[in-house]
Amino acid sequence: MLPGVGVFGTGSTARVLVPLLKAEGFEVHALWGRSEEEAFCLAKELGIPFHTSRSDDVLLHQDVDLVCIYIPPSMTRQIAVKALGIGKNVVCEKAATAVDLFKMVTAARYYPQLLSIMGNTLRFLPAFVAMRQLLVEGYVGEVQVCDVRVYGPSLLDQSYGWTCEELMGGGGLHTVGSAIIDLLSYLTGSRANRVHGLLRTFVQQNNLIRGIRRVTSDDFCFFQMLMGGTASSSGGMCCTVTLNFNMPGSFVHEVMVVGSTGRLVARGTELYGQRNGGKGEELLLGDDGWVGPEAKEMPLPHLRGLSSMVKALKESFQAHEERRLWARGPVAMAPTFEDGLYVQTVVEAVKRSSCSGEWECVEIMSQEPDPNHNLCEALQRNKN
Amino acid sequence: MLPGVGVFGTGSTARVLVPLLKAEGFEVHALWGRSEEEAFCLAKELGIPFHTSRSDDVLLHQDVDLVCIYIPPSMTRQIAVKALGIGKNVVCEKAATAVDLFKMVTAARYYPQLLSIMGNTLRFLPAFVAMRQLLVEGYVGEVQVCDVRVYGPSLLDQSYGWTCEELMGGGGLHTVGSAIIDLLSYLTGSRANRVHGLLRTFVQQNNLIRGIRRVTSDDFCFFQMLMGGTASSSGGMCCTVTLNFNMPGSFVHEVMVVGSTGRLVARGTELYGQRNGGKGEELLLGDDGWVGPEAKEMPLPHLRGLSSMVKALKESFQAHEERRLWARGPVAMAPTFEDGLYVQTVVEAVKRSSCSGEWECVEIMSQEPDPNHNLCEALQRNKN
Repeated sequence: MLPGVGVFGTGSTARVLVPLLKAEGFEVHALWGRSEEEAFCLAKELGIPFHTSRSDDVLLHQDVDLVCIYIPPSMTRQIAVKALGIGKNVVCEKAATAVDLFKMVTAARYYPQLLSIMGNTLRFLPAFVAMRQLLVEGYVGEVQVCDVRVYGPSLLDQSYGWTCEELMGGGGLHTVGSAIIDLLSYLTGSRANRVHGLLRTFVQQNNLIRGIRRVTSDDFCFFQMLMGGTASSSGGMCCTVTLNFNMPGSFVHEVMVVGSTGRLVARGTELYGQRNGGKGEELLLGDDGWVGPEAKEMPLPHLRGLSSMVKALKESFQAHEERRLWARGPVAMAPTFEDGLYVQTVVEAVKRSSCSGEWECVEIMSQEPDPNHNLCEALQRNKN
Repeated sequence: MLPGVGVFGTGSTARVLVPLLKAEGFEVHALWGRSEEEAFCLAKELGIPFHTSRSDDVLLHQDVDLVCIYIPPSMTRQIAVKALGIGKNVVCEKAATAVDLFKMVTAARYYPQLLSIMGNTLRFLPAFVAMRQLLVEGYVGEVQVCDVRVYGPSLLDQSYGWTCEELMGGGGLHTVGSAIIDLLSYLTGSRANRVHGLLRTFVQQNNLIRGIRRVTSDDFCFFQMLMGGTASSSGGMCCTVTLNFNMPGSFVHEVMVVGSTGRLVARGTELYGQRNGGKGEELLLGDDGWVGPEAKEMPLPHLRGLSSMVKALKESFQAHEERRLWARGPVAMAPTFEDGLYVQTVVEAVKRSSCSGEWECVEIMSQEPDPNHNLCEALQRNKN
């Protein structure tokens, strides 16, 4: 039986997610917005019976068994951890920091019977599901290089907000790069050991953001990941990712995997392949046309991935009579909070690399850093 | 009046160059090959009256006024410097090291009345000539990012030789990357301050190269250049270059320049552009079809660039009655030996970066390194 859903967020993703949920038969009972007004307007538009700006009102809502959290990254951890504590299943977007993710991982481990997945939707896109299958079957032989590029218009909101602030989780690397980092670990079945990157904010001010305000989040990012093998060896595969959001009027989303005997390329939502010695590129999976809701602000691969994730959620919950129970099978491919922690760790290593100019190791946090650490350092400095 | 030409080399470029020269009215009087047999065969095939394996026979040939040197990089310096010393005009491909180039620069400065250009032919390709013009006119606004990718089949020769050896000037970075480095400095009018790169040899052995022999030259290379601004500042533009020669059956040659108000992309020999706020990509320069000689081993952008360079040489020499004199105008855009030294310096900095993992500064050699330097170091070590 399908669970009742509570949605956090009034942004472009929430706006697309609600119709997708409804189309699959989920009932959306409650909507949370940062202000009463935002919540009221979107709830009215999407026909959601209850709206609020107080998070507990959604989390404690008796008809809500599944919470979908699509809010600014800096607020995600608090809601996600609380929802699990109250006994609700959670799907959420990325959080702001690795420490946040670590706390979410701890909560998820504490409630293993609850669903807790990252809403990193590219894994669910049929083109990438097929790509992974072909990689496992050896279509390209041994993977050598993954080459990803995403080009598009600015990611900034119309008004000044978290999308402009690097520390709030804004920027191409955090917003789009994280989905790519997750995707590449899913496709190749391995993780980055060392990363190198370069971030830039070419457009620091525009018509809407000016005066003393400046954009600090990246609009161009470029990073490399050495994956597989050991951290010290030079073997394994090289992943290169180029993100450029200074290209209004275009959207390029290309993921290429080159191996010893062939290659696979996903362009947008279509998958192409070519074997060495073959006659040329073949279309392996076409786009069968999108019939879901329109979403100007959301690129098609993310939109279709979101749609596939909702379908997987439906299958997962339909398997049980009790509306809070779910089956692992249909959502087994979804990124866990552990995967989210890995992704955020890579994001932060790339940012460190952009500052230091050096290759940075990817070391997953294994215990929470001492919250008094900075204080201790400050005291230490005073003593000397 | 057109000068008589002597050609060094029997490889794929020489094989294409001779018909191009003849088509423009140049007389090719002499051909040099590493062995008598190679020289004999190609001279017969291309109808060149004189062939030899002794370089002086071409350099001292009384009908030869222009020497075109397309031989393995490690041999280029010796022939080029000698040719200038004898008073011949020189067009040559890249040399093996920055020290070689420095010696060539010294010779070229000593004989300023002689033509001395690098045969880096991408500058002459009409798409790039148009691209540069549009960049100067401000089509893209302020340049932010250059993004170049070249994908193709293996660059290795059929048999073991210099193409397999990194130290002999083999590999994607040295062979193809150097043409891209030169092109980007031509297009943007600025030079790299700092570079970061990663080289890999994914295919170290194949059906022809096996046993104790291993390929040491890169078949995958990936580098970034920070250009313009000063070496210490983080401003200026970012160039990213991806070269992958593990992709048999395909050839991708894409040069994209993204700026604050638009972008330009050269795909193969065609040029496209898009202005921010415009209706979409427009074709700015199409391919009018290639009617010159076929060359399986040479990608079309290089082939057409070579053809345009030969046309420019014709114009340059036609401007004068005396067959050794030439006009600067038509070949003013050609890369000088100084440009060649810059390119080789960048290539070597990228190689250093691939070893060190760090950003490396591009510092052009201003005096010849002491040839006894290594000896001194060895003596020093013995003393301690």
